[in-house]
Amino acid sequence: MDVKIGISSRHIHLSKEDLYELFGENYKLNKLKDLNQDDNYSCVETVDIENEGNIIKNVRVVGPVRDKTQVEISKTDSYLLKINPPVRNSGDLSDASLITIIGPKGKIKRNCCIIATRHIHISMEEAKKLNYKNFDIVNVKLNSIKGGIINNVYIKYSKTENCELHLDLDDANAHLLNNNDIAQIMEVEDE
Amino acid sequence: MDVKIGISSRHIHLSKEDLYELFGENYKLNKLKDLNQDDNYSCVETVDIENEGNIIKNVRVVGPVRDKTQVEISKTDSYLLKINPPVRNSGDLSDASLITIIGPKGKIKRNCCIIATRHIHISMEEAKKLNYKNFDIVNVKLNSIKGGIINNVYIKYSKTENCELHLDLDDANAHLLNNNDIAQIMEVEDE
Repeated sequence: MDVKIGISSRHIHLSKEDLYELFGENYKLNKLKDLNQDDNYSCVETVDIENEGNIIKNVRVVGPVRDKTQVEISKTDSYLLKINPPVRNSGDLSDASLITIIGPKGKIKRNCCIIATRHIHISMEEAKKLNYKNFDIVNVKLNSIKGGIINNVYIKYSKTENCELHLDLDDANAHLLNNNDIAQIMEVEDE
Repeated sequence: MDVKIGISSRHIHLSKEDLYELFGENYKLNKLKDLNQDDNYSCVETVDIENEGNIIKNVRVVGPVRDKTQVEISKTDSYLLKINPPVRNSGDLSDASLITIIGPKGKIKRNCCIIATRHIHISMEEAKKLNYKNFDIVNVKLNSIKGGIINNVYIKYSKTENCELHLDLDDANAHLLNNNDIAQIMEVEDE
């Protein structure tokens, strides 16, 4: 089954409390662009992230605010920051790496940095038609001269019109992929 | 069949003429470390590479000198430099990207920048035992939580004790791999 590719650059989700600490009391995020899944949108706002003097500037904030602050980076970013974040589904911050987040009005330190699992946003209705359950793990075929098959891709029920495979920038660059390229979902993996 | 992984960072091979232009007449490269294949060695020397003001500094020179100068980078590097190099076997510079190379004594501009194909260095003797021919294309299984199967991996006869899979930094980081990790060579691809 065909699926469109969406490439996720490093980004940050903020809790309301952390938003206020970084940008000021009662600050409201400013929408830059709607994203395709749920009610997510990229924001005008960016923050810097830092570990022991190693810094990545201008990390995009993704709104709306969430329960927990979460930073999603690539393995390449992690070498630059000299941290070793775990690969986690969004929302699962177990063993997440400690990172300093710097905004215009404040600075916070949180155990919230992960490398996101490869995942496919799909509506519950479409998933059920295709016999996928939430958190099923599938393989996906990527088509390019540096293509192949990627394992451990999570099915993720979402409010979305169109099912979309989310890859980080390392996966995209390794496989020479661009936004809106088409991949193929293969079988559900045996565990 | 198991194969050890070697990760190639961006690097440059120099012709004798270009070495002299960049480092001075009759300059001799200084060995830093032997590499595992043929008589290749990484050098103390580095150069900067540049395209239209976009620069990557300290690109390692790999000796000995060759017939043709060749720069090997990753897709991630190519976005930084704003060039679009083709994926090529080492030595094949057809459609290679134009790049400026800056050394301590001079600066040259060459159509010599490529993204290297994934390849496996193997001795002719071992390859023949395993029924692989030079330039055969195989699939390789990579083992990690972000693993999978990579296509279009070239068999490359080399003077080498131990067969080794060479991946660029994008492939390594996307699949969370380190030097000396073990992968599995799968079947020869049908073309």
